Amino acid sequence: MQYTTQMDAARKGVITREIQAVAGKENMDVRRLQQLVAAGQVVIPANKNHAALDPCGIGQDLRTKINVNIGVSGDCPNVEAEMEKARYAVELKADAIMDLSCHGPTGAFRRRLVEYSPAAVGTVPVYDAVGYYQKELEKITAGEFLGVAEQHAKDGVDFMTVHAGVNRDTAAVFKRNPRLTNIVSRGGALLFAWMELNDSENPFYQYYDQLLDICSRYDVTVSLGDACRPGCLKDATDASQVHELMVLGELTRRAWERGVQVMIEGPGHMPLHEIAANVLLQKKLCHGAPFYVLGPLVTDVAPGYDHITSAIGGAVAAAAGADFLCYVTPAEHLRLPTLEDMKEGVVASRIAAHAADIAKGIPGARQWDDDMSEARRNLDWPQMFGLAVDPDKARRYRAESRPDHEDSCTMCGKMCAVRNMNRVLQGKDVL
Amino acid sequence: MQYTTQMDAARKGVITREIQAVAGKENMDVRRLQQLVAAGQVVIPANKNHAALDPCGIGQDLRTKINVNIGVSGDCPNVEAEMEKARYAVELKADAIMDLSCHGPTGAFRRRLVEYSPAAVGTVPVYDAVGYYQKELEKITAGEFLGVAEQHAKDGVDFMTVHAGVNRDTAAVFKRNPRLTNIVSRGGALLFAWMELNDSENPFYQYYDQLLDICSRYDVTVSLGDACRPGCLKDATDASQVHELMVLGELTRRAWERGVQVMIEGPGHMPLHEIAANVLLQKKLCHGAPFYVLGPLVTDVAPGYDHITSAIGGAVAAAAGADFLCYVTPAEHLRLPTLEDMKEGVVASRIAAHAADIAKGIPGARQWDDDMSEARRNLDWPQMFGLAVDPDKARRYRAESRPDHEDSCTMCGKMCAVRNMNRVLQGKDVL
Repeated sequence: MQYTTQMDAARKGVITREIQAVAGKENMDVRRLQQLVAAGQVVIPANKNHAALDPCGIGQDLRTKINVNIGVSGDCPNVEAEMEKARYAVELKADAIMDLSCHGPTGAFRRRLVEYSPAAVGTVPVYDAVGYYQKELEKITAGEFLGVAEQHAKDGVDFMTVHAGVNRDTAAVFKRNPRLTNIVSRGGALLFAWMELNDSENPFYQYYDQLLDICSRYDVTVSLGDACRPGCLKDATDASQVHELMVLGELTRRAWERGVQVMIEGPGHMPLHEIAANVLLQKKLCHGAPFYVLGPLVTDVAPGYDHITSAIGGAVAAAAGADFLCYVTPAEHLRLPTLEDMKEGVVASRIAAHAADIAKGIPGARQWDDDMSEARRNLDWPQMFGLAVDPDKARRYRAESRPDHEDSCTMCGKMCAVRNMNRVLQGKDVL
Repeated sequence: MQYTTQMDAARKGVITREIQAVAGKENMDVRRLQQLVAAGQVVIPANKNHAALDPCGIGQDLRTKINVNIGVSGDCPNVEAEMEKARYAVELKADAIMDLSCHGPTGAFRRRLVEYSPAAVGTVPVYDAVGYYQKELEKITAGEFLGVAEQHAKDGVDFMTVHAGVNRDTAAVFKRNPRLTNIVSRGGALLFAWMELNDSENPFYQYYDQLLDICSRYDVTVSLGDACRPGCLKDATDASQVHELMVLGELTRRAWERGVQVMIEGPGHMPLHEIAANVLLQKKLCHGAPFYVLGPLVTDVAPGYDHITSAIGGAVAAAAGADFLCYVTPAEHLRLPTLEDMKEGVVASRIAAHAADIAKGIPGARQWDDDMSEARRNLDWPQMFGLAVDPDKARRYRAESRPDHEDSCTMCGKMCAVRNMNRVLQGKDVL
């Protein structure tokens, strides 16, 4: 049977190869998954031109997924260095890779990435437009912005961030409601500036139907960007953010009418106690579309440790229903991440996602923990290392500090509670 | 006026030097603080023999506090090395230091620590008893356990962990309700073993009144240990844990009758969605006594990253009402922490505590974030570094990767949203 997108297929009752694959990986009934894709509650970003893709689902009742950002830029224009990061991201078990290239050989890198990547590939066309056209921002035309999006779609990109929600209405709300840190979304700030400088409507909002044509043709999932995500705790859950979210809800419906898959991007910086309410708000205003969060960072004061501020917020958001976490590295707010920063960021995100999956009750999620705990009770070190989220670090830490008693560690030595309980429960002496 | 403890003084309407100092540091009305101390909802651990103490309050409506563990042991018997850790803990802004010494020159180290430390000092007498008497566990008498506690009190220790809740009743509940990882509390496992080997009641439970005599005399805060804290997600919120907590509630009342200050220790390993319920349970069963949590770690699978699993759980616990976080380092489950591990652990705990203080609505907590956000909007790098939780790391990260444009960083370069928004809002061109 003919279909355009995964959503269109699911609505027609077609079980695509991608739906089949995702159902298998998630241990979910394939008909249930098909219904979730048809309803827009799960997306399977899978561009028809992305042959290397190992498809992955994002949304309701699925494991929480994580994304890694890479890309060539003015400060780091080396394609090979970025390809190394892509391979490392896959090795670290990232579910998606966003190519945020904004300068230099962006097209060459994007095509290399799609050719290689088993992970879903996302982009932000507005970044590339700025790098590609190399002219003053306000001189880029609406048609040129759309042209870049079309090129990305042809190149096999699975999902695209489009900041279509910062339209003239949202911009007016922003101007009437001053913020401490204005707009901190890169793409959002560029589009706001473009609109101000040209006194025009946001091109992605104005020509949204054309964008949907492109997305429908290649099956690109629209990731509706949150230009007005809060850039600090003080700006969280303010009028600009909520207004934009309502616009995104309308844009979601319009995409679904065309069979185009949609995710919604979310905060940002946000106090811990506001996170659950924000997830609820997104799920309601955007009709259950999957929620892709950037953080949330639960404090602004920890540059160098934003993988931790983000792991706290990400775990709480995902436990409350967020579906997809964008990784944050220790380099956030300071510099481009190194490979080591990437690893710290991915591991922190994986921890947050897994902790949330247990809380959400994803079937089987806690088995990993139970296996680890059994290995701990048995003081089976090789088994513990094998199960660790990062076996190398666990092994290295222990190797650097060997205990007197092989069945303990230097933390507690012979006072190891596990060892002593095992002994006394077997009727043996302790210590 | 004569008084025994801070609680006794508060009940008699006396504003002690310590209550005055804590009220000043917390920006709290001194009479309100006095009432909270009188009611047991705030403790000020302040041994009469701890001259170097800069008193700190723990509990309701106060900033969340953090504790660092150090101590001489069989695998690390060097007093000078541990004193270096103590000085480092104070430099890193730990509010309390627990001396978990269990072998070697424990007394000498403890006295050095009390002589030096402006932070509250805590100990676990049962660890020291094992190290001090150097005989088979079951041969240590109840009087000898109490004797060690008395020596610690004389030496100026501000709070002591006492696992009095794992009495015969709790042990019977534990035996009837098998767990995946048994008892993982070091002190709890030792006392359980002692009880099994001697077929006797827990000495700290049996002679609890004598312990209270000691604590009343020196004003030692009793930190009621949770021997049955879950050691893995599967064991969380089980019968053993909840039974012990009920016993701790009874012991809290008995301490308060004698004017002795009390904290309650808590989990442990715990799924994210169980944390708030556990804080509620502790506050109800223990009559509002301050809650001192060890974690909670929200997954078991991340050895090498338990500062992160613990920051997630600690932030959520403190936001729900926990008052005091025991730091967890990346070395947890693997080895004794190094100085670098200590720093990672303290910073992660401080982030969790601060994120929770914002969520709890501690007056003034968010000002720090707002100051940082203003510095960010102004692209004022020296100001950002000065406000960072770890200025050295933030400064180093930026220095290692200088951008082309000084008013940006290599993450976004000239596409920096902050820079571009500042320019467009001033009517300037961007990029």
